[in-house]
Amino acid sequence: MLRKILVVGAGKSTSYLLDYLLEKAESEKLHVTIGDLHPEHISDTVKNHPHCTVVTLDIFQEDQRHQAIQNAEIVISMLPARFHIKVAQDCLKYGKHLVTASYVSDELLKLDQQVKDKGLVFMNEIGLDPGVDHMSAMQVIDRIRNKGGKLLLFESFCGGLVAPESDTNLWNYKFTWNPRNVVVAGQGGTAKFIQEGTYKYIPYHKLFRRTEFMNIEGYGKFEAYANRDSLKYREVYGLNDVLTLYRGTMRRVGFSKAWNMFVQLGMTDDSYTIEDSEGMSYREFVNLFLPYSPTDTVELKLRLYLKIDQDDIMWDKLLELNLFDSSKTIPLKNATPAEILQHILEDSWTLGNEDKDMIVMYHKFGYEIDGVKKQIDSNMVVLGENRTHTAMAKTVGLPVAMATLLILNKKITTPGVQIPINKEVYEPILDELTEYGINFKEHDVCYLGYNPDSIAG
Amino acid sequence: MLRKILVVGAGKSTSYLLDYLLEKAESEKLHVTIGDLHPEHISDTVKNHPHCTVVTLDIFQEDQRHQAIQNAEIVISMLPARFHIKVAQDCLKYGKHLVTASYVSDELLKLDQQVKDKGLVFMNEIGLDPGVDHMSAMQVIDRIRNKGGKLLLFESFCGGLVAPESDTNLWNYKFTWNPRNVVVAGQGGTAKFIQEGTYKYIPYHKLFRRTEFMNIEGYGKFEAYANRDSLKYREVYGLNDVLTLYRGTMRRVGFSKAWNMFVQLGMTDDSYTIEDSEGMSYREFVNLFLPYSPTDTVELKLRLYLKIDQDDIMWDKLLELNLFDSSKTIPLKNATPAEILQHILEDSWTLGNEDKDMIVMYHKFGYEIDGVKKQIDSNMVVLGENRTHTAMAKTVGLPVAMATLLILNKKITTPGVQIPINKEVYEPILDELTEYGINFKEHDVCYLGYNPDSIAG
Repeated sequence: MLRKILVVGAGKSTSYLLDYLLEKAESEKLHVTIGDLHPEHISDTVKNHPHCTVVTLDIFQEDQRHQAIQNAEIVISMLPARFHIKVAQDCLKYGKHLVTASYVSDELLKLDQQVKDKGLVFMNEIGLDPGVDHMSAMQVIDRIRNKGGKLLLFESFCGGLVAPESDTNLWNYKFTWNPRNVVVAGQGGTAKFIQEGTYKYIPYHKLFRRTEFMNIEGYGKFEAYANRDSLKYREVYGLNDVLTLYRGTMRRVGFSKAWNMFVQLGMTDDSYTIEDSEGMSYREFVNLFLPYSPTDTVELKLRLYLKIDQDDIMWDKLLELNLFDSSKTIPLKNATPAEILQHILEDSWTLGNEDKDMIVMYHKFGYEIDGVKKQIDSNMVVLGENRTHTAMAKTVGLPVAMATLLILNKKITTPGVQIPINKEVYEPILDELTEYGINFKEHDVCYLGYNPDSIAG
Repeated sequence: MLRKILVVGAGKSTSYLLDYLLEKAESEKLHVTIGDLHPEHISDTVKNHPHCTVVTLDIFQEDQRHQAIQNAEIVISMLPARFHIKVAQDCLKYGKHLVTASYVSDELLKLDQQVKDKGLVFMNEIGLDPGVDHMSAMQVIDRIRNKGGKLLLFESFCGGLVAPESDTNLWNYKFTWNPRNVVVAGQGGTAKFIQEGTYKYIPYHKLFRRTEFMNIEGYGKFEAYANRDSLKYREVYGLNDVLTLYRGTMRRVGFSKAWNMFVQLGMTDDSYTIEDSEGMSYREFVNLFLPYSPTDTVELKLRLYLKIDQDDIMWDKLLELNLFDSSKTIPLKNATPAEILQHILEDSWTLGNEDKDMIVMYHKFGYEIDGVKKQIDSNMVVLGENRTHTAMAKTVGLPVAMATLLILNKKITTPGVQIPINKEVYEPILDELTEYGINFKEHDVCYLGYNPDSIAG
């Protein structure tokens, strides 16, 4: 008797997820049903696998959804986060486990008691970020605590970048995931974190000028700007008394300072639309944000406005994007500045056929044990294989797949709506991930508290 | 038989309004009823006037409100704008005219047809800004059009400042009106305007660095930053084809560049609260927005962050506000940065007993007539007499009072929910305002189009 897994939604990040499950299908006695609105996009290798069935599934069709979920033993939802709740409600109704890589919504959390009452596992935030970050952080935090240590500092950084061999532009960046998230990153509220016991706030227009730096052996220097939500997991991780708590997004050095040009101009704004944006040239778009002049060029006005010296590499970064081109036009109707900027960036930053991506993660754990202050730095680098088998798909998809099998095999049994912060979950998954080249390198370093020398002016 | 006027709300701006009506009460056969929630604040001179009755009025008490409105022939609402609608609905029900100095809300506009059907006048936006700006602008625009001219450019600026004799601090500024509006000015959306036929956008964090300059004879140089709503009256004024349309707020030169320090730090943010703000020192508040350092002073960190040179007067502007004082504390609980900043500023910028305020308004009208391009610049300066008889109260209250009498005397008869852009309204009021020292000085100047030389870098 095969154990039936339903995967709802087969988007970008499911290549490794499906490969993993189908590889194990024979030995683990699995049958995988993939339900997708557009199943024609799924590769033949997957479609023709003897343990796989592909069905057209519109989750807004109740009958289809009910039937598919009833037929499964466990459901993996890889839909956009806002659609999980429908799937979750049915899983609860029909008594099926659920796995997602998305943040736990308030709506979902409300089901917790009912999920527990039925003995079901609803595992969420088990992709990369959130996911691998939770697991790798909690493993070290628990280890420090079990030795009697007290946490003083926790900083955590993650970034989706290009592999060194594909790092071919002045920004050291290409879109490896959702471009929109990159363009509007940091918006929607002031970044808030704790440094040495005091709250610190960075408004959006200063966010990309308050970067921290870090080195990863063999990969060189990176920078990170603060996330909005550094304090989100303070309680969940049990870090209420920690002196420093900071989460950030990693980029190659120099990206943030250059990105700040777009922020300063107002090009990342997504709150209003530009009339007549369709057919506007890149050059005209830039000029919208500069003072009028009957004589001065857009170039000169921008240099003055942003105080870019003649010999500053920032200028070349703008030229590389064809920002002053008057022949390139915007095809979008009544678009926001952010949508237009995204279009211009996609023109330059889309991954080529041969391009590979790279995931980097970096944690710092400061702690005190027997009166001595210590620090562990821990980092992970994962390189993509090709355009479908990306490092992003690997680090998101494998933990989801592994958690699914562990739940089926009753290795993960604690019921409820949860995230992977317990040993029962993180230990087997982190162990198995190392077999796939996903592993952390730890270094003991000097504890300096929050290190002010690493702050950009 | 006396004609009964009901004034609802007797706040800061009603001194001249009440004086005007009571002065004319005998000759014009008026009786003024003042309905206020706290009538004890009203001066004895007003209270004891034979043509005046003061009553306690809570506009949320339907009976009280209905009775007061039924008894009147015309109602002046000086309540906060959001409360006008209740008064307006009753005025419509009982067939009374209405006058307010506030912006026409969508809710109010919906009553337009019913107001017209009953032959009532609901006059709004007839204070200073909005009010005097509409009237003075439309008078010149109509005159240019009547001569066959075509408008090319309209720029309009207004500011509430201190009179030269009370201009005693480095910011050349004190609060003469609602401090909160000053602290959050420019927030809530990108400033949008038109310069020489193209849209221009300024994000909030650049707003105070894109000032224009203007001179007023006898008063020296002023600056202005862009309002969010420059295009709001494009249709109303009939300026759909104009090449340049810009509205701004006037300050003394240097204010905006210094204010920008608060914007850059994030201190004007009103979207989140600071935990434990109560009892925090001014110095600690500043440090919330600066990177952590175990050694460097708040002063040094701020100088570096905002790039303030040793000899820059900007620094003295901060010192003047006691911003680095560790003994001065914030009394507000869980306050937003903007609320805390307001408290710190009120500490320094509150009008003294002897201080006088000043209102400045400046219009530029560019036009073409018989193939020749011309420009008229027009400005108004009004000085306050003392703390109750301020220039603000005068320029807001007198137009309201005059409009009320003109409606009573059937000089303003066009019915409907309206603003003062018609000759029937602006001509008699602007004429009468000159008797009170409120008048515009016009100058013919060269038409330069939008003048880029007046832009700050």
